[in-house]
Amino acid sequence: MATVVTRENIKMREKTLTMETLNPQVKAVEYAVRGPIVLKAGEIERGLQQGQKHPFTEVIKANIGDAHAMGQKPITFLRQVVALCSFPELLESPSFPEDAKVRAGRILQGCGGQSLGSYSASQGVDCIRRDIAAYIKQRDKGVPADWDNVYLTTGASDGIVSILKMLVSGQGLSRCGVMIPIPQYPLYSAAIAEMDAVQINYYLDEDHCWALDINELHRAYLAAKEHCHPRVICIINPGNPTGQVQSKKCIEEVLHFAFEENLFVMADEVYQDNVYSTDCQFHSFKKVLYEMGPEYFNTVELASFHSTSKGYSGECGFRGGYMEVLNLDPEVKAQLVKLLSVRLCPPVSGQAAMDVIVNPPLPHEPSYPQFHEEKSTILGALAEKARMTEHILNAVPGIKCNPVQGAMYAFPSIFIPPRAVEEAKALGMPPDMLYCLRLLEDTGICIVPGSGFGQREGTHHFRMTILPSMEKLKVLLEKLRDFHIKFLKKYSSLEELER
Amino acid sequence: MATVVTRENIKMREKTLTMETLNPQVKAVEYAVRGPIVLKAGEIERGLQQGQKHPFTEVIKANIGDAHAMGQKPITFLRQVVALCSFPELLESPSFPEDAKVRAGRILQGCGGQSLGSYSASQGVDCIRRDIAAYIKQRDKGVPADWDNVYLTTGASDGIVSILKMLVSGQGLSRCGVMIPIPQYPLYSAAIAEMDAVQINYYLDEDHCWALDINELHRAYLAAKEHCHPRVICIINPGNPTGQVQSKKCIEEVLHFAFEENLFVMADEVYQDNVYSTDCQFHSFKKVLYEMGPEYFNTVELASFHSTSKGYSGECGFRGGYMEVLNLDPEVKAQLVKLLSVRLCPPVSGQAAMDVIVNPPLPHEPSYPQFHEEKSTILGALAEKARMTEHILNAVPGIKCNPVQGAMYAFPSIFIPPRAVEEAKALGMPPDMLYCLRLLEDTGICIVPGSGFGQREGTHHFRMTILPSMEKLKVLLEKLRDFHIKFLKKYSSLEELER
Repeated sequence: MATVVTRENIKMREKTLTMETLNPQVKAVEYAVRGPIVLKAGEIERGLQQGQKHPFTEVIKANIGDAHAMGQKPITFLRQVVALCSFPELLESPSFPEDAKVRAGRILQGCGGQSLGSYSASQGVDCIRRDIAAYIKQRDKGVPADWDNVYLTTGASDGIVSILKMLVSGQGLSRCGVMIPIPQYPLYSAAIAEMDAVQINYYLDEDHCWALDINELHRAYLAAKEHCHPRVICIINPGNPTGQVQSKKCIEEVLHFAFEENLFVMADEVYQDNVYSTDCQFHSFKKVLYEMGPEYFNTVELASFHSTSKGYSGECGFRGGYMEVLNLDPEVKAQLVKLLSVRLCPPVSGQAAMDVIVNPPLPHEPSYPQFHEEKSTILGALAEKARMTEHILNAVPGIKCNPVQGAMYAFPSIFIPPRAVEEAKALGMPPDMLYCLRLLEDTGICIVPGSGFGQREGTHHFRMTILPSMEKLKVLLEKLRDFHIKFLKKYSSLEELER
Repeated sequence: MATVVTRENIKMREKTLTMETLNPQVKAVEYAVRGPIVLKAGEIERGLQQGQKHPFTEVIKANIGDAHAMGQKPITFLRQVVALCSFPELLESPSFPEDAKVRAGRILQGCGGQSLGSYSASQGVDCIRRDIAAYIKQRDKGVPADWDNVYLTTGASDGIVSILKMLVSGQGLSRCGVMIPIPQYPLYSAAIAEMDAVQINYYLDEDHCWALDINELHRAYLAAKEHCHPRVICIINPGNPTGQVQSKKCIEEVLHFAFEENLFVMADEVYQDNVYSTDCQFHSFKKVLYEMGPEYFNTVELASFHSTSKGYSGECGFRGGYMEVLNLDPEVKAQLVKLLSVRLCPPVSGQAAMDVIVNPPLPHEPSYPQFHEEKSTILGALAEKARMTEHILNAVPGIKCNPVQGAMYAFPSIFIPPRAVEEAKALGMPPDMLYCLRLLEDTGICIVPGSGFGQREGTHHFRMTILPSMEKLKVLLEKLRDFHIKFLKKYSSLEELER
């Protein structure tokens, strides 16, 4: 025990956890939404606070779908219910409306010891699961929904990762392949890397408003079959980062394809309330599957994900969410519950927030007018900002933006002059990373390079949210336009400019 | 597209996700705290509600450290702060104390858009991280704590899994070995199974109040080195399920051992506020490391975990927690942040709850008297229940219980007659599982078999919490005693009984 620690054996002691010994699957993970540009933005922000000089006075974060951080106000009713659940003495307070008290009382009844501080069942609080099933049934015009198939999650991410974890197995030719759209939300690529599965890219069709092309699915599937076992198809609808809303026909084709090829379907539907284009409508994968008939509805394995973070409530910090699974083998379901139980339960206040979203005030209830007013104001503003963003961006030479039909993002393609491409290469970064970096340094605007989401070779994009207030978003878009023109000028030869 | 779906090709369509195709690492996971006995208890509970007859009228769940579910009341100040953060209009209300408002205002200042609904940074809200660092420094009598080393987590489990995920790598002889105590909290074995690392058991010394014996560490380490690369040692102090509180000398020995063998130290210290035995004291691994001198303090890689779920607040449902890391390679730290960022952030209301726990009312503040009263009442009752549990259990023939020095559980050894062992074998279950099952069926008491935590071959235990109210706990222990005596009688031969 009396080992003398000398200078020598200190020097010899290497760290246990180094870049060399780190789990290589962790190393392989990339997550652009909080990547290098965002870290740099944080640095600049701290610099500004300490009095450093920049050509701007504030950093505008349009990198992440974080509505409240961009000034969106919470839905009053939701917060009243959460506050009542958190501090039940308020149930006696005359300043809270009756319907909020009834909701809170009901949720607390479902909690152990009537406290938000108890663990819930691993699948979530029973009455909240029932409310979710009732919501799904109503949303899908009567398609049956069994609350036993509903699991509360810690945001949608947690559900997505859990389902993927169940599916990933095999080595070599039988290694699990996961089909994901490109561009994609990088949670998918990150989870696939972490689990050492095979990422199978199917490209969305930018020329047709980022539609999913069934032929491209076939191509990707057949190519992947050569080297792995495709077992899962992930769809994001409405699209992130691409903002498209899938047509019913397109969803039918995907489901038929999944049926034929025995694929597990993961439908990321967290933007189901965010549809702005008047000629689009949200169709849930489940409803479409039902309408395809019992042969499909009783066989295709489907998991659909929703969240408190998006929609009109934008409650990201509560980490609420749920998934509904369909046609899962009963034994597999037991395994899923077991897997979820290791993490004990999703945050119960997030579950309460989810409950309010699926079970908002009804027209005859006292909180309805305010709730309805807040909800329409938020969704109306988002729709207007979606149109304005598309409009302003498309007026800039060298920027082309599809309509933002839904979700919360624009994902325009940008022309990057060859000289800028070369400079980026010399700096060891993708060209759109250089673009976003220069934009940040020049204007304080923080957006995410398209390379973080995936894009066709040789094309360049960025993702920006439409969440800043109308005034701020307008300023942002104008600054972006001016920057873009300057950037083109700086890197283009005279001939290119004249073309 | 016009494929006709016939009865034939339906039959041929197999499920994608079956017990055969399920990720084998998920299959390997076991989690007894919510395992078969607990599922059975749930069934019985539902049966009781539907009027089924049992020899008891209620199921008492002593399987999980879920204080509020057992009737413990929340700390008022904590819930006031969370309610104020959730619904900031309450900041104007005269019915909330000033100090709670100040705390809530400060937390909201740290949130994007001053809303609990914004994502926080992946590491957590800055000011909460600072408060945690200040708490650690005070707890450890001035040992420096850098808030940059503090990460908020979704309960302690999330932090533990994240750190393990970083460390796990290698194949064959260099496969990562993780040393864990036996008995252990089954999150460890579950995570190790899920990540396909090697579990290295070191046995705690039941004959010496579940102390950690340094010779046993050496034995386990040397044996494991033959077939893997031991890289991590996990310690749970105060112990779960074993309730011991480690001496300073013991912690020194462990740290010296980790230093010598280049092991990463994971110190699960979630029960740091739960010490009942007057001759025991909680020593943090970090403080002891500091006192061993800079050679140790500046080199040993350490992660320590804490949580809102235990202590005197028992706020399990909020899923709050934090970890402090020490001596992490800076590049590795960046990788950790990246890994955490994929899940966006821990629940912000859980972060707020954590803040109150590390930053409770001060003696001169208005909420102090009530806070102090509530805290001492809870901890006082736990100490009394710890003593009563030990006392009553040790009076039962065939049960032997070490003092419950800390944490929330008793883990007594139980004599199971050979005939019962044989019956269990015939039923394909561990003998203590049979014991717990019979107990549940006879009395409605739900506890967890020792086999779910690990134990020396041939010994049998169970884990029960000391969380029910004094009256309920007394009834529970008396029912348990009567059951045990009946069980012994039923399965013992006459000679055995006379011995």
